[in-house]
Amino acid sequence: MKDKFYKYIQELQDTITLKIEEIDGKAKFDEDQWKRPEGGGGRTRVIENGNVFEKGGVNISGVHGALPKAMQSYFNVGEVNFFACGLSLVLHPKNPMAPTVHANWRYFEMYNKEGDIVDSWFGGGQDLTPYYLFEEDAVHFHQVCKISCDKHNPEFYPAYKQKCDEYFYNAHREEGRGVGGLFFDYCKTTEEMSMQNWYDFVTEVGNSFLEAYVPIIERRKDLPFTKNQRDWQEIRRGRYVEFNLVHDKGTLFGLKTNGRIESILMSLPPQVQWRYDHHPKPESEEEKLVKVLKKPVEWL
Amino acid sequence: MKDKFYKYIQELQDTITLKIEEIDGKAKFDEDQWKRPEGGGGRTRVIENGNVFEKGGVNISGVHGALPKAMQSYFNVGEVNFFACGLSLVLHPKNPMAPTVHANWRYFEMYNKEGDIVDSWFGGGQDLTPYYLFEEDAVHFHQVCKISCDKHNPEFYPAYKQKCDEYFYNAHREEGRGVGGLFFDYCKTTEEMSMQNWYDFVTEVGNSFLEAYVPIIERRKDLPFTKNQRDWQEIRRGRYVEFNLVHDKGTLFGLKTNGRIESILMSLPPQVQWRYDHHPKPESEEEKLVKVLKKPVEWL
Repeated sequence: MKDKFYKYIQELQDTITLKIEEIDGKAKFDEDQWKRPEGGGGRTRVIENGNVFEKGGVNISGVHGALPKAMQSYFNVGEVNFFACGLSLVLHPKNPMAPTVHANWRYFEMYNKEGDIVDSWFGGGQDLTPYYLFEEDAVHFHQVCKISCDKHNPEFYPAYKQKCDEYFYNAHREEGRGVGGLFFDYCKTTEEMSMQNWYDFVTEVGNSFLEAYVPIIERRKDLPFTKNQRDWQEIRRGRYVEFNLVHDKGTLFGLKTNGRIESILMSLPPQVQWRYDHHPKPESEEEKLVKVLKKPVEWL
Repeated sequence: MKDKFYKYIQELQDTITLKIEEIDGKAKFDEDQWKRPEGGGGRTRVIENGNVFEKGGVNISGVHGALPKAMQSYFNVGEVNFFACGLSLVLHPKNPMAPTVHANWRYFEMYNKEGDIVDSWFGGGQDLTPYYLFEEDAVHFHQVCKISCDKHNPEFYPAYKQKCDEYFYNAHREEGRGVGGLFFDYCKTTEEMSMQNWYDFVTEVGNSFLEAYVPIIERRKDLPFTKNQRDWQEIRRGRYVEFNLVHDKGTLFGLKTNGRIESILMSLPPQVQWRYDHHPKPESEEEKLVKVLKKPVEWL
């Protein structure tokens, strides 16, 4: 399973980066191949200063070895060996009318001393962070998520949509990071779902990513915008930074388990502002966004 | 003691904000008085878009009531009442040649059910974060710190200078946030130091703040700089954000104990950049700074 899934994310990285370059029309991804001293490594692909994408990364990694101390206590296990691989992507468009998108699909194995798999699971999801709210974008994104889910289980979409709203929540701001999508974790063998079934589900979601995001970026990438709208985007990007550095378990684990810092922090937006006690004007488009983030919306 | 120290920080806030406005020559501090629903409140003063200071805050607060859950486990105590007050300041100059400065002086009391003080301590410090290294600035800042310390105990400066280097450390980047200063905490009654002695020490340090910083900002505020130097400042400000959101206990506690978010996050710089895998050019002024941050320097 681990080899099959790693091969899958390698191919998916190629598919996604090719399409993103095509949309951008100017910038190309730079690739960094890196090795983890304790075992494994990854292939980081970063795009910067494009026509459409101001900054973004589509990264894969496959790491293995002794489970780091911080993760032992998190998973409540002793000294075990592990394997983890996944694809992580974040795309920050230049145009404030176009939303940032994030996705991650991953697979994890833990072993006993004999090297047998004692536990394994899939996790992942994808979510959208607009700076201006176009309801049709949120609806489209969720629609694609739902179609992928429904092929496997009609209960997945509502359950994983809710988990996404709960996870990508800036508690200290009392608002969501964005308009959500899917979030699932610890997808393990059950009576209904074998690991192969989970593989089929996760790859279905991964395969639908471009269908979920491309129509949105195509619609928004060339819309006109003002300096004030750009400032608003940079201020909202501050909330993105706050979520990733204060709340996101993936980022914090990476930082605390000697992960590859630059691959982890490539998720941070290129230009960001913090103003003191900034509030959008009443009845403005900016306020409309903030109101929607206060309470999860059923987009479908 | 709590009334005396609160009165002291009120006056110190006035003294510092007056002087900062005088140096800036354009912007004035805006004041927000706020109340904490559970008890107490504060006086936040923020300056933005000045001639010299792009963003800064000089805030005081005095809060009391039941110790929040997160702090109970941190201090390893049960349900007790507390009082805490302090002055916190961060100043982000516009000119990349001028360093950011941070300072904080605070006092804490814990009570038993009868309302008697069962524990109390002072804490605080001040530290300097340059974007370009002027050694004479670091030396001057540390000199003023040392003079304040030496009046009370010759062991204070080396001990608190070291604590500062240890605390303001971006572990995930393996570099210091800046060139340090002083950091002390849990300053409690000992055979040598009464609480009155600690009060005298902490106020001595607080009173020396302007002497430590003003000559530096005066020397650097009007130096010429290029677009590239400004970019470097904004990239380095990213490290400031990373420290405050990932490592700083004060910020994280504030965010997790329902503190006043805007007063806590006023410490974040106004304009910030993150670039992928950015490294200064060999032998450049930028590289000189980063090298100095890799290992604490004995400035005196």
